[in-house]
Amino acid sequence: MPAYKAPLRDIRFVMDDLLGFSEHYKQLDSVTEVDDEVQTAIIEEAAKFSENVISPLNAVGDQAGCVWSAEGVTTPPGYKQAYQQYCEGGWPALAMPESYGGQGLPESMNIVLTELISSSCPAWSGYPGLREGAIKTLLNHGSNELKERFLPNLVSGQWTGTMCLTESHCGSDLGQLKTKAIPVCGNEYRLTGTKIFISCGEHDMAENIVHIVLARLPDAPAGSAGISLFVVPKLLVNDDQSLGGKNNVSCGSIEHKMGIHGFVTCVMNFDGATGYLIGKPNKGLQAMFTFMNSARLTTALQGLVHAEVAYQGAVPYAQERLAMRSLSGAKNPDGPADPIIVHPDVRRMLLTIKSFAEGFRAFAYYVAQQLDLSEHAKTEASREQAKQLLALLTPVCKGFMTELGCEAAHHGVQIFGGHGYIREWGMEQNQRDSRISTLYEGTTGIQALDLIGRKVLGSKGALLTNFSNIIFEFCQSQQANQPMQEFTQPLHETTTQWLELATSIGQSAARDPEEIGAASVDFLMFSGYTILAYFWARMAQVSMDKLETGAEDRDLYFSKISTARFFFQRLLPRTATLKQTIQSGAASLMEITPEQF
Amino acid sequence: MPAYKAPLRDIRFVMDDLLGFSEHYKQLDSVTEVDDEVQTAIIEEAAKFSENVISPLNAVGDQAGCVWSAEGVTTPPGYKQAYQQYCEGGWPALAMPESYGGQGLPESMNIVLTELISSSCPAWSGYPGLREGAIKTLLNHGSNELKERFLPNLVSGQWTGTMCLTESHCGSDLGQLKTKAIPVCGNEYRLTGTKIFISCGEHDMAENIVHIVLARLPDAPAGSAGISLFVVPKLLVNDDQSLGGKNNVSCGSIEHKMGIHGFVTCVMNFDGATGYLIGKPNKGLQAMFTFMNSARLTTALQGLVHAEVAYQGAVPYAQERLAMRSLSGAKNPDGPADPIIVHPDVRRMLLTIKSFAEGFRAFAYYVAQQLDLSEHAKTEASREQAKQLLALLTPVCKGFMTELGCEAAHHGVQIFGGHGYIREWGMEQNQRDSRISTLYEGTTGIQALDLIGRKVLGSKGALLTNFSNIIFEFCQSQQANQPMQEFTQPLHETTTQWLELATSIGQSAARDPEEIGAASVDFLMFSGYTILAYFWARMAQVSMDKLETGAEDRDLYFSKISTARFFFQRLLPRTATLKQTIQSGAASLMEITPEQF
Repeated sequence: MPAYKAPLRDIRFVMDDLLGFSEHYKQLDSVTEVDDEVQTAIIEEAAKFSENVISPLNAVGDQAGCVWSAEGVTTPPGYKQAYQQYCEGGWPALAMPESYGGQGLPESMNIVLTELISSSCPAWSGYPGLREGAIKTLLNHGSNELKERFLPNLVSGQWTGTMCLTESHCGSDLGQLKTKAIPVCGNEYRLTGTKIFISCGEHDMAENIVHIVLARLPDAPAGSAGISLFVVPKLLVNDDQSLGGKNNVSCGSIEHKMGIHGFVTCVMNFDGATGYLIGKPNKGLQAMFTFMNSARLTTALQGLVHAEVAYQGAVPYAQERLAMRSLSGAKNPDGPADPIIVHPDVRRMLLTIKSFAEGFRAFAYYVAQQLDLSEHAKTEASREQAKQLLALLTPVCKGFMTELGCEAAHHGVQIFGGHGYIREWGMEQNQRDSRISTLYEGTTGIQALDLIGRKVLGSKGALLTNFSNIIFEFCQSQQANQPMQEFTQPLHETTTQWLELATSIGQSAARDPEEIGAASVDFLMFSGYTILAYFWARMAQVSMDKLETGAEDRDLYFSKISTARFFFQRLLPRTATLKQTIQSGAASLMEITPEQF
Repeated sequence: MPAYKAPLRDIRFVMDDLLGFSEHYKQLDSVTEVDDEVQTAIIEEAAKFSENVISPLNAVGDQAGCVWSAEGVTTPPGYKQAYQQYCEGGWPALAMPESYGGQGLPESMNIVLTELISSSCPAWSGYPGLREGAIKTLLNHGSNELKERFLPNLVSGQWTGTMCLTESHCGSDLGQLKTKAIPVCGNEYRLTGTKIFISCGEHDMAENIVHIVLARLPDAPAGSAGISLFVVPKLLVNDDQSLGGKNNVSCGSIEHKMGIHGFVTCVMNFDGATGYLIGKPNKGLQAMFTFMNSARLTTALQGLVHAEVAYQGAVPYAQERLAMRSLSGAKNPDGPADPIIVHPDVRRMLLTIKSFAEGFRAFAYYVAQQLDLSEHAKTEASREQAKQLLALLTPVCKGFMTELGCEAAHHGVQIFGGHGYIREWGMEQNQRDSRISTLYEGTTGIQALDLIGRKVLGSKGALLTNFSNIIFEFCQSQQANQPMQEFTQPLHETTTQWLELATSIGQSAARDPEEIGAASVDFLMFSGYTILAYFWARMAQVSMDKLETGAEDRDLYFSKISTARFFFQRLLPRTATLKQTIQSGAASLMEITPEQF
């Protein structure tokens, strides 16, 4: 298992050279000042913590897994201690509001922290991560009383949180859920029902767990219009925030999963559990959507994480493993064979992983900047522009990056040959861990319907035009830059096709609504490649500038340009297939009857 | 975990309607007569055995795995008993020569058996499977004395076999291997060295294990020209085939793998073990190649297996799971939601899996027919033609089918949403089990180099022309068949591109040999899609004929035509990307230096 090494140079490249984090932070209101010194302090400390404390838990947690008993769930050795250190270091509060004890840093700094922690041990990173959903739900929709009672300990990390949505018969389609909430008095309710797939539903890492639960009031309308939101603590909480007795919530069992074994997934039983209504009755589902963008971005990051882990594992192996001679003549003539990194097909896989990992970082950090701007930009117009970008980019970021994160993990195994299939190298764990990412927080199919249905067609193309104009402006700005033409010309062409495809899907959908679903995932992937091409073109341009102005780290900048070139020549052509399959329409999908399958 | 159901109707479609097995068997010399009755008896009995005896071992074996101790390896509960039943049923001897107790049936019947057994439990199927390599090595290269001593018990299945090739520092590049063989007297040697990744190297299913070992004689030349082949039994074998004492062979440990947990993978220590030379000194590697086609075909079948398992799991789930309403109006208005099989994107995944599983069966069974013909066709010309087809098709069959088998397994998980990630549904096991298939028996990269380097360019295009003429003749034969044009036109076009790409790779390679490796895997995949298009076009044509002549099973034939249409519209367009990436050449892969990664 390779030890994780925080890719600080690549991270700084995106923060400083590409996206200008320091300049970006000056555009924000009401956020703690985050100058270069603060950024450096945070990411270097986070890197050390990730490498030294979290990374060693990764293989151990996979092998030990979580253990259920009637008394509770025991997390893998070291998980709890690491979490205590994490809280002592103040990490849980990094991007939390100062009014509840947080440090008030922007989301984009939290994303860097999340990348580092999650790359070190995806399973462990879920515990502090899930808590953020509970905090945001309470922050955005809870009464002051609920906030006072629950937020300080959630913000400090002393308590963790969950989101209890799924039931055995419904996941994406939450309108079907059956858990009931019966009013007792005031804002107090008794909840009864069974939730499944509850991440971090029960564990030994924190003294209390705050569940956010979707349930139905007795008089609720059917379907998704009758869902309300409740906060249900594991241990009851007194008015002074001290802990009271045990609530009627229990973990019935835990799931045996393909991967992320250290990240517990629970069946949670609510047997007349005490809960408190959050927000308005029957408006629970809408409330959930308010922080969906940040939750999806966190999940999207896993695409980056699994590509980065594959890359960190595969590069040294490819540099050291000796097999065969280069077809163009021995590169290691004194050894028994050449290192496999000389072979073009090994390079093809390595460069695929590299262009994903580094491209995803640019994409995800950019989206994180839009999260910052959507809340803290100084003008309403800027906030609105960021919200529009977020609306369009978030489903692509989640669906596209996680699908290709799985592909990267697959290549990571492949580069190792048979050794990739064996536990000790960590590559098979990476592939198993990656597999969840296209499923939870909305499957790829759900992201794709959100993108083409709600965002692109729902805005009559406005959201798409908005972002494609940013791309066109960039291409325009490089018109006099001859070396950039190899990137901007295909980028311009692909972006034009992207708009045309959206229009043609809209036209087909007017005739047959099935055309939306038929085009959805391929359109999401087309969108992803287009957006990634934009970021790779920008990275190439920045790198050319740096080389021209005599910057240090020349290998880094050369490597960015080479990787951009690889992306444009070897990966962007995937849009050629996607264009054809989108244009082929729904007929070939819908012709066969359910019984003929 | 879904119980496996042998897809006999689909199998008969390929055997009878598409490939005419009965007619094919009449073209063979020196093979036991295999009329329709014999075929039916075999596949129906094999289906029952697979469903009732082998399939129940699949989930159990994954969870229990194999257990190592200094005394040996214990296979999962039920494995040994099932193997005894398998031997009692005479299955191990099905396609083995009658001179050593076999039943002398052709390879193509064995492939059907292998599909059924392997789909029921991929891990278990490896034990009888590995034995076949040992048998073929001895049959083709062993002295009569060695054959008499080892073959009867291997053929009956009383003993199993292994292939001991890999060492920790070398897998694909066997020229680097270090295991030594020192002559004792006559044909007897003492072998010393450590082999890794030895499938079935030690277990409790059979009374003896016959290892075929690659090693070096003391005076052997360096590299692959100095490798010899030995037979090394676990227990020594007396001249009368009775068992003698323990040989100096031991299993040092077993690997912890991503999947196929019931299929043991051993580190084997040879400490002055007694072995016997097979064939000529230093000619071991060439000898290994003599049965490589059949070994690769068996591994290729796993692509079919994992697609079939994904399909059998996902179809009933998609028919039963209720989520959301169809965009074109409720299809299950009395229920709380529609079954997900109504959604176009779920259908896209199901049809992808279906077109792989059924297309792979056609492809693999066709290759198996060529195996039959290469040995048993009545004329030298027919044998030679079959050998040429085999040479070209085998690496494609192995590389392409296993890559897409992994993709099918990925979709199988995806259709289940979060449930796909959980052990109980069997889909995550299928994905873990599938992952080995692109690695062993030559990685995809190795298959791809064999295809483009040795087979296509090495024959100066002759092998490719040979098969593409078969495709063109088929297209020609359908020229007057209007409904077939939607298939034959793109098939003709793609095949033409295939030939052009091969030519252009040859031209580029003359300038820069790295172009071969740079194009290799993409060319293999392009070849696979072209070949699959050929089989899907033929399946469509056969089905149209059947419908026209009023055959029963109309749903089956309609479904074949719909699936062919889906393949041509949704999967064949992947060649558009591959064409571009092949044409992009080696430059973007080779520019970056090893240190810049």
